[in-house]
Amino acid sequence: MQRIITLTTDRKNGLYDITKEIEEIIRDSRVQNGIASVYARGSTAAIMIQENWDQSVQNDVIALLNRMIPPGVWEHDKQDNNGDAHLKAGLVGPSETIPVIAGKCGLSTWQNIFFCEFDGPRSKREIVVTILEDVRGKSAK
Amino acid sequence: MQRIITLTTDRKNGLYDITKEIEEIIRDSRVQNGIASVYARGSTAAIMIQENWDQSVQNDVIALLNRMIPPGVWEHDKQDNNGDAHLKAGLVGPSETIPVIAGKCGLSTWQNIFFCEFDGPRSKREIVVTILEDVRGKSAK
Amino acid sequence: MQRIITLTTDRKNGLYDITKEIEEIIRDSRVQNGIASVYARGSTAAIMIQENWDQSVQNDVIALLNRMIPPGVWEHDKQDNNGDAHLKAGLVGPSETIPVIAGKCGLSTWQNIFFCEFDGPRSKREIVVTILEDVRGKSAK
Repeated sequence: MQRIITLTTDRKNGLYDITKEIEEIIRDSRVQNGIASVYARGSTAAIMIQENWDQSVQNDVIALLNRMIPPGVWEHDKQDNNGDAHLKAGLVGPSETIPVIAGKCGLSTWQNIFFCEFDGPRSKREIVVTILEDVRGKSAK
Repeated sequence: MQRIITLTTDRKNGLYDITKEIEEIIRDSRVQNGIASVYARGSTAAIMIQENWDQSVQNDVIALLNRMIPPGVWEHDKQDNNGDAHLKAGLVGPSETIPVIAGKCGLSTWQNIFFCEFDGPRSKREIVVTILEDVRGKSAK
Repeated sequence: MQRIITLTTDRKNGLYDITKEIEEIIRDSRVQNGIASVYARGSTAAIMIQENWDQSVQNDVIALLNRMIPPGVWEHDKQDNNGDAHLKAGLVGPSETIPVIAGKCGLSTWQNIFFCEFDGPRSKREIVVTILEDVRGKSAK
C-alpha cells in the first residue's frame, strides 16, 4: 500500500512527529511482515528517527544542525537564500525504512518518526509511505 | 528489476546526477507502485538526494563536508591517506529508498539523485538499483 | 524473511560489525534478487556502512562524532545526560538498505555493516533484518 501524508509547517526549522499517521497506514495495509518506506518530498526537508519524550531532543537537533550548517554563508544563498536548508536536508536524508513486525510498526519504545522542516513555514509538505510485504516469507510458512 | 549503473568520476570530491538513469530503470521495470532502492558500492562513496538547479548546492555540499571532515587528521590516513573519504561516505550513507508512484519516480520537483564521490577520480563506480513492486497493493485492487 | 539479531555492547561509543550475521540471513532466505533492510532499534543507536580493514576507521568515526557532537551541552542532558547519543543516532540514522544480488549480499569489497552504539554498554540491542524479494523480476524471466 502506498499513501501520501500531507502536513502544514509553522516554523523555519522544526520537527513534526508523524508516527501515528504511519502506524495507521501500516494497520490499514494489513501487512504482517515487511517494511515501511518513509520518504519526504522536498529538497529542504528530511526524515529523522528520534526520541519524543518531550521537546528537548527536537530542540537539540535544530541547535546542532544550525551550529554545523550556519545560514548565510553558502554559494546557493545568492539564489534562494536557503543554502543551509538544502545542506541540512541532504545530510539527514529524505528516506528511512522501518520494519513491519507482526502487523505493527517495528520502532523501539523511544523511537518516533519525524518530518524535518528546514525551510518553512510551508502550507503543504508531502511524505510518501510505501508498505511492502515479505511475500516469500509468508508463502514459505 | 535490478540493474547496475556504472560511472567514471573525474575529481577527488564530486556529485554526479544519476536521476535520468534511475528514471529509465523504473520505466523499464513497468512497476506501477513500489520503491526504488539506490545503493552506492564503495566505502568512499555515497548517495545524496539534493537540488540540481545549478552547480551551487553541489559545491556547497563539498565545502560543508570538507569543513566538517578535513583531510589529513585521521588515524586511517596512516594506511590509505583517505580517512576523510570514508567518514564522509559513512555519514552521508550509501542507500536511499525512493517511492515509485504510478509508474514514475516519486522525487519532488527539486529533488535529484546524486552519486557522491569522495575519493576520486575512479575509472569505475557502481550503483545498484533495485525496483520492488507493491504486489499486495496491486492484487488488492 | 525477517529476523532479529541481538547484541551486547561493552562501551559507551562503539561500532560492531554485523556483516556475517546479515550474510547468513540472506543465505537462509534463499532470495536471489532483492533487498536487505537493516534497522537498529533504539534511539541512541544506528547503522553505518563502513570499511573494516582494521580498527582505524571505526576509531575515526567515533572521534569525528564526538568532535561534531560533544557530550554535556544539550538541553536533553538535563533529563538523561545522553543528548549527544540521541543526536549521533539521528544523524547517522537507524536504517540502511542493501541489495541482494544473485543470492549474495551486494556490499562492495571494503563495505561492512556496523551497528553503532552511542549510549552503551547495553546488555541487549536489537537489529531487525528484513529480506524482500524482487518477485516481479523473477517471474518476468
